[in-house]
Amino acid sequence: MAATRRPGRNHLFVPGPTNIPDRILRAMMVQSEDHRSVDFPSLTKPLFEDTKKVFGSTDGTIFLFPASGTGIWESALCNTLARGDKVLSSRFGQFSHLWIDMAQRLGLEVIVQEEAWGTGANPQRIEEALRADKNHAIKAVMVVHNETATGVTSDIGAVRKAMDAAGHPALLFVDGVSSIGSLPFDADGWKVDAAIAGSQKGLMLPAGLGVACISPKGLQAAESQAGKNDRLAKVYFDYADQRKANPAGYFPYTPPLPLLYGLREALACLFEEGLENVYNRHHVLGEATRQAVAAWGLKTCAKEPQWNSDTVTAIVVPEGVDAAKIIKHAYVRYNLALGAGLSEVAGKVFRIGHVGDLNELQLLAAIAGAEMAMLDNGVTVTPGSGVAAASSYLRENPLAKA
Amino acid sequence: MAATRRPGRNHLFVPGPTNIPDRILRAMMVQSEDHRSVDFPSLTKPLFEDTKKVFGSTDGTIFLFPASGTGIWESALCNTLARGDKVLSSRFGQFSHLWIDMAQRLGLEVIVQEEAWGTGANPQRIEEALRADKNHAIKAVMVVHNETATGVTSDIGAVRKAMDAAGHPALLFVDGVSSIGSLPFDADGWKVDAAIAGSQKGLMLPAGLGVACISPKGLQAAESQAGKNDRLAKVYFDYADQRKANPAGYFPYTPPLPLLYGLREALACLFEEGLENVYNRHHVLGEATRQAVAAWGLKTCAKEPQWNSDTVTAIVVPEGVDAAKIIKHAYVRYNLALGAGLSEVAGKVFRIGHVGDLNELQLLAAIAGAEMAMLDNGVTVTPGSGVAAASSYLRENPLAKA
Amino acid sequence: MAATRRPGRNHLFVPGPTNIPDRILRAMMVQSEDHRSVDFPSLTKPLFEDTKKVFGSTDGTIFLFPASGTGIWESALCNTLARGDKVLSSRFGQFSHLWIDMAQRLGLEVIVQEEAWGTGANPQRIEEALRADKNHAIKAVMVVHNETATGVTSDIGAVRKAMDAAGHPALLFVDGVSSIGSLPFDADGWKVDAAIAGSQKGLMLPAGLGVACISPKGLQAAESQAGKNDRLAKVYFDYADQRKANPAGYFPYTPPLPLLYGLREALACLFEEGLENVYNRHHVLGEATRQAVAAWGLKTCAKEPQWNSDTVTAIVVPEGVDAAKIIKHAYVRYNLALGAGLSEVAGKVFRIGHVGDLNELQLLAAIAGAEMAMLDNGVTVTPGSGVAAASSYLRENPLAKA
Amino acid sequence: MAATRRPGRNHLFVPGPTNIPDRILRAMMVQSEDHRSVDFPSLTKPLFEDTKKVFGSTDGTIFLFPASGTGIWESALCNTLARGDKVLSSRFGQFSHLWIDMAQRLGLEVIVQEEAWGTGANPQRIEEALRADKNHAIKAVMVVHNETATGVTSDIGAVRKAMDAAGHPALLFVDGVSSIGSLPFDADGWKVDAAIAGSQKGLMLPAGLGVACISPKGLQAAESQAGKNDRLAKVYFDYADQRKANPAGYFPYTPPLPLLYGLREALACLFEEGLENVYNRHHVLGEATRQAVAAWGLKTCAKEPQWNSDTVTAIVVPEGVDAAKIIKHAYVRYNLALGAGLSEVAGKVFRIGHVGDLNELQLLAAIAGAEMAMLDNGVTVTPGSGVAAASSYLRENPLAKA
Repeated sequence: MAATRRPGRNHLFVPGPTNIPDRILRAMMVQSEDHRSVDFPSLTKPLFEDTKKVFGSTDGTIFLFPASGTGIWESALCNTLARGDKVLSSRFGQFSHLWIDMAQRLGLEVIVQEEAWGTGANPQRIEEALRADKNHAIKAVMVVHNETATGVTSDIGAVRKAMDAAGHPALLFVDGVSSIGSLPFDADGWKVDAAIAGSQKGLMLPAGLGVACISPKGLQAAESQAGKNDRLAKVYFDYADQRKANPAGYFPYTPPLPLLYGLREALACLFEEGLENVYNRHHVLGEATRQAVAAWGLKTCAKEPQWNSDTVTAIVVPEGVDAAKIIKHAYVRYNLALGAGLSEVAGKVFRIGHVGDLNELQLLAAIAGAEMAMLDNGVTVTPGSGVAAASSYLRENPLAKA
Repeated sequence: MAATRRPGRNHLFVPGPTNIPDRILRAMMVQSEDHRSVDFPSLTKPLFEDTKKVFGSTDGTIFLFPASGTGIWESALCNTLARGDKVLSSRFGQFSHLWIDMAQRLGLEVIVQEEAWGTGANPQRIEEALRADKNHAIKAVMVVHNETATGVTSDIGAVRKAMDAAGHPALLFVDGVSSIGSLPFDADGWKVDAAIAGSQKGLMLPAGLGVACISPKGLQAAESQAGKNDRLAKVYFDYADQRKANPAGYFPYTPPLPLLYGLREALACLFEEGLENVYNRHHVLGEATRQAVAAWGLKTCAKEPQWNSDTVTAIVVPEGVDAAKIIKHAYVRYNLALGAGLSEVAGKVFRIGHVGDLNELQLLAAIAGAEMAMLDNGVTVTPGSGVAAASSYLRENPLAKA
Repeated sequence: MAATRRPGRNHLFVPGPTNIPDRILRAMMVQSEDHRSVDFPSLTKPLFEDTKKVFGSTDGTIFLFPASGTGIWESALCNTLARGDKVLSSRFGQFSHLWIDMAQRLGLEVIVQEEAWGTGANPQRIEEALRADKNHAIKAVMVVHNETATGVTSDIGAVRKAMDAAGHPALLFVDGVSSIGSLPFDADGWKVDAAIAGSQKGLMLPAGLGVACISPKGLQAAESQAGKNDRLAKVYFDYADQRKANPAGYFPYTPPLPLLYGLREALACLFEEGLENVYNRHHVLGEATRQAVAAWGLKTCAKEPQWNSDTVTAIVVPEGVDAAKIIKHAYVRYNLALGAGLSEVAGKVFRIGHVGDLNELQLLAAIAGAEMAMLDNGVTVTPGSGVAAASSYLRENPLAKA
Repeated sequence: MAATRRPGRNHLFVPGPTNIPDRILRAMMVQSEDHRSVDFPSLTKPLFEDTKKVFGSTDGTIFLFPASGTGIWESALCNTLARGDKVLSSRFGQFSHLWIDMAQRLGLEVIVQEEAWGTGANPQRIEEALRADKNHAIKAVMVVHNETATGVTSDIGAVRKAMDAAGHPALLFVDGVSSIGSLPFDADGWKVDAAIAGSQKGLMLPAGLGVACISPKGLQAAESQAGKNDRLAKVYFDYADQRKANPAGYFPYTPPLPLLYGLREALACLFEEGLENVYNRHHVLGEATRQAVAAWGLKTCAKEPQWNSDTVTAIVVPEGVDAAKIIKHAYVRYNLALGAGLSEVAGKVFRIGHVGDLNELQLLAAIAGAEMAMLDNGVTVTPGSGVAAASSYLRENPLAKA
């Protein structure tokens, strides 16, 4: 919201919150209704079922909390683990850092595997750590699927293989906040015990609804905590309270109605486009962005192609240039919101989010805008080069699979 | 949401969620935007200031969480108190019960003063308990201002006087979920240290935004917990994280944008009508409802006039009648949502919420509908009697003060 | 729109515009799109087909104009008739008067049959006039189906029988602005050649879309005018221009997109409820209103039960009372919009519209409000009597047929 | 609307309808209300006043019709002129042609001055024709300000000078449908007697509201027709009916409420941005588009820079290329709606509308998309060249004046 009117649409390319399709905006425009009525379950029960599909889960249980992604993360950790439990986690960016920080603040003991920013979780090191844990003191492995800060996607399938190779029974927790609904996610195949999504990324909703998909094994872990004194889960995020009410289509406290109606429409959008098409679209837009970066003669924060994220690209600006200035200028002058570099990479990178409801020309507008903002701030790139490279790629690669 | 189309407007008379004025629905229909932009504080900073007015506070600090009322309650308890702390609380209905239950699940030691359902907090007993607590082991007094389950309003000013008379330094916590924005609330005058509101009652928004107003003394208590190991506040609800970001107009995690824009509009609505007029309107509508109940020859759950709530009336049905049947019938046949009796009064009462954005004729519709639903279920009331009594009262008593 | 905030919902009981269901409001919230795109006909072609059902027509042709009801009336007259043509019409209220006035201003020669206000078209007199017109100089019979000013419904089937009995080939034109979509309408059975509806009544949309259903015979009449010099139809309302574009799903000029999307949703609403249920609902609400009027000891403007309209009731106030004052007071004090008396009955009646998206409790609110407004203005009715009578009737008569 | 979901925003670059700002979409989402209430004029009276500013008029009278631009054109001609009246008009594109066609169908005698498509009204020829009209038989000069079909803007000030030089009393009628609210318009300075705007262009609303601004001299002409038998104005478009109701804030028939609320917000948008800034923005975006066209090595339909329109650019495709294919491909593949060539230039040009609520990056998206669609259809342009040229220009030329 600006003090004076800014003409035209905003160009939102932070890696979340993402653009909300008009039909979802419409769907959320609902009057209040009695959430304890006999009708209400006809809205909610299908939500619990259909949301699982986005996680690639068939036997998981969906929890929906009025909360941001941070809250839903807290819910997963505190329902399934006990104070002092050991967990293993890799740190390679701001969001993996914050998650580790949360675990520590919750009283968990985190074995941190530091990885270079620009890379991701290292399955081999994880396997080694698990093999070394003969007593199975490690209760969970926590992996950020898509590190939003650096534009890096970790290979969860490989992490699962490492865990299986080590024969270790730890739970597998995956932060899919900026991946679920945008990148392929296979909770069943990867045997993910707690997968976490926020509403404001691939689900194309406003922030305010946290979504967790918990495996039967994860639920069992939660139940084993349930009786304990001094358990981490207090009241608001207690899965047990939800499980008493959810199966009948109700909630232990008043649910955020617009987000439930919005979720229903978001799922309809994803299924109508087809999840395979959604994933392909994100891949094509991600690759087009990388083509533009290469044409500019710049590098991504992701160190090798295997780490490339299809939902966000972090672009390293040349030495001596302040990326923060580019970002502010893009916003003020061109109504283009780019993501900032955080922590270790603050001032060194800007990020283009290409997640959620986007198509080719929207992305090209952002690429053109980023180019203009760089030129205005002393980065010498060839005018039009980014759009030329990206558009040439996009012409050859349709968003939807045949 | 019904399986088939139900004609006309829904008549929502549960005591929350409440009707959302069209202009608030409009205000909430917003696209995503970058919540870290330079513009964003122009939305948020006035929110923190203006929300205080609804609490009757000048020196409090507002916290806004993506959460329901349950969550905001948890935030208040776990930020300011430590595991094992003693608190004093009165129980006289389902919501005061739930709050005590939460405190216990959080590991607090609750001294429960049982009061008859249909009455409220007893200042004299509170004073006695505090006087007896020579060592000041009691860290907080928790009072539900408006017990939604029984339609009872407690006298917070009298509680404060009792605390002062006892010369006790305990914090005063007040659950104002179904009162704030509807009933007079004087956080300053009553020296309330933590006052709690949900978005879906007097603030006329959907559920999903928890609002707390914490006094300087309450903040101090929170700060004194901040350094502690094993503190109750974990991450999501940590006031310290908010206080690092809020003063500049930002949040530690993605805020629920529609609810922030909605809150701005809700405050505008309240201030345009005038808080005094809002309170008077609730009183007049509450009294009209009670006139109808009297005309029906029925009793309210509130045992004496001093306990009458102006936001919800719980009506006791005659012996042998199942109030649940009346409620279901009202919903299915007349699209009228009434509140159910909970726990001790389940099946014995139905409730008419008269909270939030309502006017005379809306209430008369509900009274007419309740009458029809009673008649259809064997309660012998004189047809039209409730509307006659209520409308006669309403004709004499305008909603707005001169 | 009021200068200061008025709490609660508005109570709109003018006989149009009518309440717009939330789902239609949502459906109309659409961005602009290219109305010449290859996709566009997938929206429009079903509209042309499905709208016919509301007219009870199978072989008619639907015309959709960006216009009010007045415009669509002009379209029907000027496309099918020539300057100087004779038409026969009955006058028994303000709207039948205005239509006759329009015909005269268009240069038609109108044979006016005056009927008492409070009655409607007289089939016998129509038959007589047609029998007397040996040369078939009368080109059309114009009947207002539902005279909104007096709350009178004419019997179109009887008019058709009269025309057939007279063996007269005149076209039959019916103003169904306040009946179509609310009262049974049988364009096929009644052989109506031009039936006219506005968007803001039974179609539950804002004003701005005029809808005509023209029979094959009516179209033929239009075509016979098409070649003529000095024809009445100019450009905007020319059916010929529409017929060149409509069959392919397009329009000769830019259509009002929100109203087209709104119409799609309105038709969905009507069909989901079921037209028979819609008609029954209007009948039950109309009868409930009349029960209230009787209980008040007042009379309707409709002189005999056969003339009762199920979409609007005009209520005659006692001698010496100014109905305009009641109407203004109801609006200012209770946010209740009643219809005024027009022309001959100005100040003598007020009208309760019960058309469009309404249910029992909404109507009871209006009845309660009308009663209060009367009492406040010196009409001595028994408080609660109207609601008592109406609600007793409504309890026995469900809105939906089994 | 597409049969299956298309991801992302639509890119609408037809020269109208134009993008509707979100805040206008919100403003239009209104429930029905009584348009005869005492409150209603507080909405409408300022509309009549403020709309004049967009026309550059102080003493004009605004008429608001539920109609498209075609309808409002008809209103202007038929209120002020009589059957058989002579009018002078230039034809140089599809819309000037259609207007002449309308005048002829209305029974006016049109002296047509043919100008080459790609040029505009020729003040010198107009002056000559008026000088030759010694008897002042010519009652009006009709000029299309902005010929949407060819992207040509005529110089209305020069036309006025020509009329004054000829000392001819004819009325001056200007079609400003695709200019008013986007290009400088000076109804006072140019002494325009009837200026016409549609809601779906510079006013950023859906189609459905026709707006005319009539000078005192124009009104006088209308009044001189008022008494006549067989006048052109019938009922719907009769200015006299409006003038009876408008000054008090009412309408002769039900107005389209969402469009009135939308107009209020649209005016607020224009005034907040500042009309000078709005005009400058259109100029800068127009020039950027032309820079892109030049970089592609293509020509605009406008034959010389003086004719360049700042709201739409018609681009001539190379011989042998079918522009219609490019347009269809742009829509189907890239969700980019371009304008088609009409009539004489069908298949030879495609048009980029740059009118209404647009900013730089939106335009660059369209330029990138047009380039891709051309490349996909065999037009050999250098990839990225259009965006490079346009963006370089845009970097140097801010949308808002200092």
